[in-house]
Amino acid sequence: MAIKESNTDVLIIGAGPSGFMCATWLARCGIPFRIIDKRSTEVFAGQADGLQCRSLEIFKSFSENCFDFATLDQGWKVANHMIEMCFWSPNEHGELVRNSRVADTIPGISRYTQSVIHQGNIEKWFEDSIDHFSSGTVKVERPLLPVSLKINEQEAENPEAYAVDILIKKLDNNSARPEQYGKVANGLFRAFDGDQEKFYKDVTKDNEDDYELIHAKYVVGSDGAHSWVRKQLNIDMDGEQTDFVWGVLDMVPITNFPDIRSRCAIHSKESGSVMVIPRENDLVRFYIQLKEVEREESSPGDKEFSGTVEERRSSKGRIDRSKITPESILKQAQEIFHPYSLEMTDLHWYTGYQIGQRVSPKFSSHNRVFISGDACHTHSPKAGQGMNVSMQDTYNLGFKLALVCKGLSKQDILSTYESERLKVARDLIAFDHKLSRLFSGKPMIPNSDIMDGVDLDEFHQVYLEGNKFASGTIVDYEDSLLISKKSGTISSPDEEGRVYNPLASKVPIGRRLYSDNIIAQADGRPIHMADRTPSDGRFRVLIFAGDIKKNPKNVELLYDFQDLIDSQDFFAKKFTPINAFANSVIDIVTIHASNRHDVEISDFPEFTHPLDYKRRCDYWRLYSGVGETYHEGDVDIYSTYGIDKKKGVIIVLRPDSHVALVSELSVAGFNEVNDYFNGFMIPQTKIKSPPKDPQADDSNRFVLPRLAV
Amino acid sequence: MAIKESNTDVLIIGAGPSGFMCATWLARCGIPFRIIDKRSTEVFAGQADGLQCRSLEIFKSFSENCFDFATLDQGWKVANHMIEMCFWSPNEHGELVRNSRVADTIPGISRYTQSVIHQGNIEKWFEDSIDHFSSGTVKVERPLLPVSLKINEQEAENPEAYAVDILIKKLDNNSARPEQYGKVANGLFRAFDGDQEKFYKDVTKDNEDDYELIHAKYVVGSDGAHSWVRKQLNIDMDGEQTDFVWGVLDMVPITNFPDIRSRCAIHSKESGSVMVIPRENDLVRFYIQLKEVEREESSPGDKEFSGTVEERRSSKGRIDRSKITPESILKQAQEIFHPYSLEMTDLHWYTGYQIGQRVSPKFSSHNRVFISGDACHTHSPKAGQGMNVSMQDTYNLGFKLALVCKGLSKQDILSTYESERLKVARDLIAFDHKLSRLFSGKPMIPNSDIMDGVDLDEFHQVYLEGNKFASGTIVDYEDSLLISKKSGTISSPDEEGRVYNPLASKVPIGRRLYSDNIIAQADGRPIHMADRTPSDGRFRVLIFAGDIKKNPKNVELLYDFQDLIDSQDFFAKKFTPINAFANSVIDIVTIHASNRHDVEISDFPEFTHPLDYKRRCDYWRLYSGVGETYHEGDVDIYSTYGIDKKKGVIIVLRPDSHVALVSELSVAGFNEVNDYFNGFMIPQTKIKSPPKDPQADDSNRFVLPRLAV
Repeated sequence: MAIKESNTDVLIIGAGPSGFMCATWLARCGIPFRIIDKRSTEVFAGQADGLQCRSLEIFKSFSENCFDFATLDQGWKVANHMIEMCFWSPNEHGELVRNSRVADTIPGISRYTQSVIHQGNIEKWFEDSIDHFSSGTVKVERPLLPVSLKINEQEAENPEAYAVDILIKKLDNNSARPEQYGKVANGLFRAFDGDQEKFYKDVTKDNEDDYELIHAKYVVGSDGAHSWVRKQLNIDMDGEQTDFVWGVLDMVPITNFPDIRSRCAIHSKESGSVMVIPRENDLVRFYIQLKEVEREESSPGDKEFSGTVEERRSSKGRIDRSKITPESILKQAQEIFHPYSLEMTDLHWYTGYQIGQRVSPKFSSHNRVFISGDACHTHSPKAGQGMNVSMQDTYNLGFKLALVCKGLSKQDILSTYESERLKVARDLIAFDHKLSRLFSGKPMIPNSDIMDGVDLDEFHQVYLEGNKFASGTIVDYEDSLLISKKSGTISSPDEEGRVYNPLASKVPIGRRLYSDNIIAQADGRPIHMADRTPSDGRFRVLIFAGDIKKNPKNVELLYDFQDLIDSQDFFAKKFTPINAFANSVIDIVTIHASNRHDVEISDFPEFTHPLDYKRRCDYWRLYSGVGETYHEGDVDIYSTYGIDKKKGVIIVLRPDSHVALVSELSVAGFNEVNDYFNGFMIPQTKIKSPPKDPQADDSNRFVLPRLAV
Repeated sequence: MAIKESNTDVLIIGAGPSGFMCATWLARCGIPFRIIDKRSTEVFAGQADGLQCRSLEIFKSFSENCFDFATLDQGWKVANHMIEMCFWSPNEHGELVRNSRVADTIPGISRYTQSVIHQGNIEKWFEDSIDHFSSGTVKVERPLLPVSLKINEQEAENPEAYAVDILIKKLDNNSARPEQYGKVANGLFRAFDGDQEKFYKDVTKDNEDDYELIHAKYVVGSDGAHSWVRKQLNIDMDGEQTDFVWGVLDMVPITNFPDIRSRCAIHSKESGSVMVIPRENDLVRFYIQLKEVEREESSPGDKEFSGTVEERRSSKGRIDRSKITPESILKQAQEIFHPYSLEMTDLHWYTGYQIGQRVSPKFSSHNRVFISGDACHTHSPKAGQGMNVSMQDTYNLGFKLALVCKGLSKQDILSTYESERLKVARDLIAFDHKLSRLFSGKPMIPNSDIMDGVDLDEFHQVYLEGNKFASGTIVDYEDSLLISKKSGTISSPDEEGRVYNPLASKVPIGRRLYSDNIIAQADGRPIHMADRTPSDGRFRVLIFAGDIKKNPKNVELLYDFQDLIDSQDFFAKKFTPINAFANSVIDIVTIHASNRHDVEISDFPEFTHPLDYKRRCDYWRLYSGVGETYHEGDVDIYSTYGIDKKKGVIIVLRPDSHVALVSELSVAGFNEVNDYFNGFMIPQTKIKSPPKDPQADDSNRFVLPRLAV
């Protein structure tokens, strides 16, 4: 068969939030890639809506302050910010009362608060971002169905090889249309993939023009809970199922319940529980526990395609979804809300689902094929985690793929994807398992005759602890090629498992760096550390130089660093391609602790204010971490990070802003940084072959990431 | 001649920042209008770049938080924020030294700081905004030349009349192309209109298909310093001219001058002065005083079209612009910067200009034709005021036109445009006159033999005082139909001319309301008062109800207000069209001073949480002005505004957020509010004719402004 063949560095299968996040990274870093989806149009039924603090931080990290482009960043502007969480439960007379109110997001954990916005908006912003970063060259290709996948294992270790063959088929638009438009959405949560089967029916009707054989270096399966890619890798999900059935309503409520615009967890005495999530445009989402749901006869299930794994495993047979109607869900909600009234207008969407938690034991194969998002983990939606963890899977994977595809890093770093994200998925499942059971159970009512059931104090406690986890900001990656936790000076883990170098006693290694203001030496403008370290694919070496007025030796040290930076054998030059800008792979930023008015740029060595080929100065490498600002209060990032203003410190950030290494401000410490990069980076100064004329070797040419500030 | 004829409510002539701001208002309010320009393309040479705090506030006021739309709001994100102002001057040895550093924007004056961005960006955002607000129905029509203008004076007082006839001619694209692309820009500042003449050459070659006779209710001439509209109204500019000649360079400097990324005023000993304005993308603008400029022979000038008025009036003859080159300007700058080096790369634009200040004595004719922006006032550009004051002219005019065109307000209110803005223009001219002379003069050098010349301490002082003016936030409108400063309880003017009602002792009447956070009762989210009172064409009645827990009588008062609000003869119903939403003309917002957790929405009367026709509740009418927030610190807008938490107060805002009235929290005070609106609003409840069936009268139907929060 003369099927069309083509090459690409990365093929992403599935255009949901997880696939889009991967695509955003690759587009941002200039990697050749494609993203395909078997649907002919976007699926507007993916009804996730929660945005964690960390997701909002990541969105911001892809926006560029100095350009007229604010796509992903709009989330924070448009989404409904969740401010307060209210707990309602029966008092000793069995009457529903407000039990307590707390901050929905733990104060001080992030510059963002948890927010809510329809998934459709997010997917649109992703498409715009990919369009922007790829200069319009990459669009989602639809409807394309993957038909076969084969890893050429002999070539798996050769980074140049297009070691994965995927056969894809062009579908006709009609057969690929999602079912959202015809009948009302009746799937289990996230169950629009339940119609997989119909796609593969057509594959037998062969017309070779409809096929293409893609040779990819890497494949990312972000293809949902029923992942076709996962199936090709023969990975089964581990997990279990409960019998609790929940309904979801998105509508504008008419009610005299006073907290309808706050997030609420309502435990009724005997009618079950409700979670209230106020959304954008006066919409409110209700998660409502359903007491009575008719079920079909239990059956062993025919094929995976005929129902979800959850359904097949349910001991009571699968729920009869046709019996779950908006009216039946509302009726249950009204009983829970009693004595408050609750009516419905402007119904936007509804569904029913059974709670279950499942996780894939493997996230990759041969460091060539990866799965992410719902393909790896599914769970209940109430904690608002699914879309976030799914995006963060590929936020972790994407920059690593980019580094490898660019020839900057060894392929070995890709194995950290599974080790880092599998732990997060398991933590998530455990959290969801615990919270779901406490939320679904009948409450114990103190000082009453109902003394069995869920202890609401325990529920509050689990909820509050979980809130830290749910913010997405405490994800902690273990020691690996990319995270250095083994240095001799690292503390033992604290009660939360955090480890530190005492030189930066509030910077847990392995977690994302908390952001705080620093002040540009050149113009006095405060800027958040996170905005100075955006997602542009670069590592950062943050040199906290201390107060150089009080410690002149620190300046001498910076001049020693300049010598190392100028050396061909040191990381700064060694891992930067010939002809590339000096900071295009590893960006060195200096933050001193002197008052900005007491020092001048010229007091510092050249790497803090380097000149480019036109002798234009880069003024955005030198900051003060301490001092007053005219309009934004006092700045002291040294205190925020627990750094001594005399000793200073060096912090290395990965491109995803996770802290990779904390080392001493000394030549020895700077050499530790060098060792870190030597562990996985590929020297660029030596030309591969032939080693004669670097100018002639176009593969060594390199495009500077857009300036970040 | 069978020339095409058409009607429109408002015709805007000239698509620069001033015309665009007017168009934005009209589009936002749903008024039929057109905007024409004689150029075939945008003029990228309008090189204004400064954005005042107030302009940024206005931009934000047109962005809508709950919609995916952030056009004008991008200014703050993309522009270079000006943080610090550095003064450099000779020390007693004549050496250039940094004399002092101050905040460029007075801290606490606004939530924004002065910023810098190329005018071209701003015009693009305006076009996008107009497109958005008009749902794509209004675009700038180019190239259309106005040929004649006639006011039908008999009809001038009839608000229904299309009392202005303007004949316009369609030009061919070539003759209307601005000269920016061919030769290098060599105009005086803002002098691209110097080629007016060529447009009118073609008018003789008649082809009636090229003409259109527009019957407009109102015409706005935002057509620049050489305004054709002003000429039709026979208005001459008053003003004068100096002999100081300045050059402007926009380029990326290569320099060892340490403050190149801060705003600097540099007085050299003998080589003149420089103003440094750091811009976006590492560009810097330099305003450089030129010592030697060749001049042509003085001549009386042929026509206005052949040169600017400034040129004709200069006693020394007009400057020979061909002698002003980037190199000659740079050479002068290098002398001023000595001993610091200064070289140039990436030259973006340059020009030369003479300082002059001119203002039009009249801004309107018959309340039917108005001029705005450069058509009314021109001055030196260094204070960064021109574009801002021009936009604010029409920010003042636009909402008034909208109110009149909608039939909500009497035409009389239009006369406040001239009374309010002429004063601002004169203040601007006076400020610029003073600053320019101090900046252009040679400095006196203390403790040296150079004891005559400009006293730099005086210069600093004038600069600092001017900074308040330059922020645009202290514009103060006098007593008029729309501003009530005559009430018995108003204080006498303080040293800055401010007057207050002691019940809100920090809210100067006539100025824009300073913005601070309030907390939504419904969800606890802090929101800036300015974001709750956006530019959507509505008046606001802000009821500061005080602490209702400690003062239960205040609640009783609110229930009295409810009775008035429900009355057909009171402002709330009287001036709102039949079938329109209750808050679509006058938006009543209540801000209490109790802790949000101590009260419930149901403690307040219905106007604080009204239901709409679908019985959906509007939760965004009730706020707490006092309390802690989880993430944004403490809120106390009562202190910010000087309001007693027991007594409360009522504040009325115009659609442009200027404080119109401050009255007592009492039935008498609420009646004062009613009197205010009775002064200029048109009752809507009585149908004009025939008075039978309101439903049948489509002109009374009304579109609700988009929800603002």
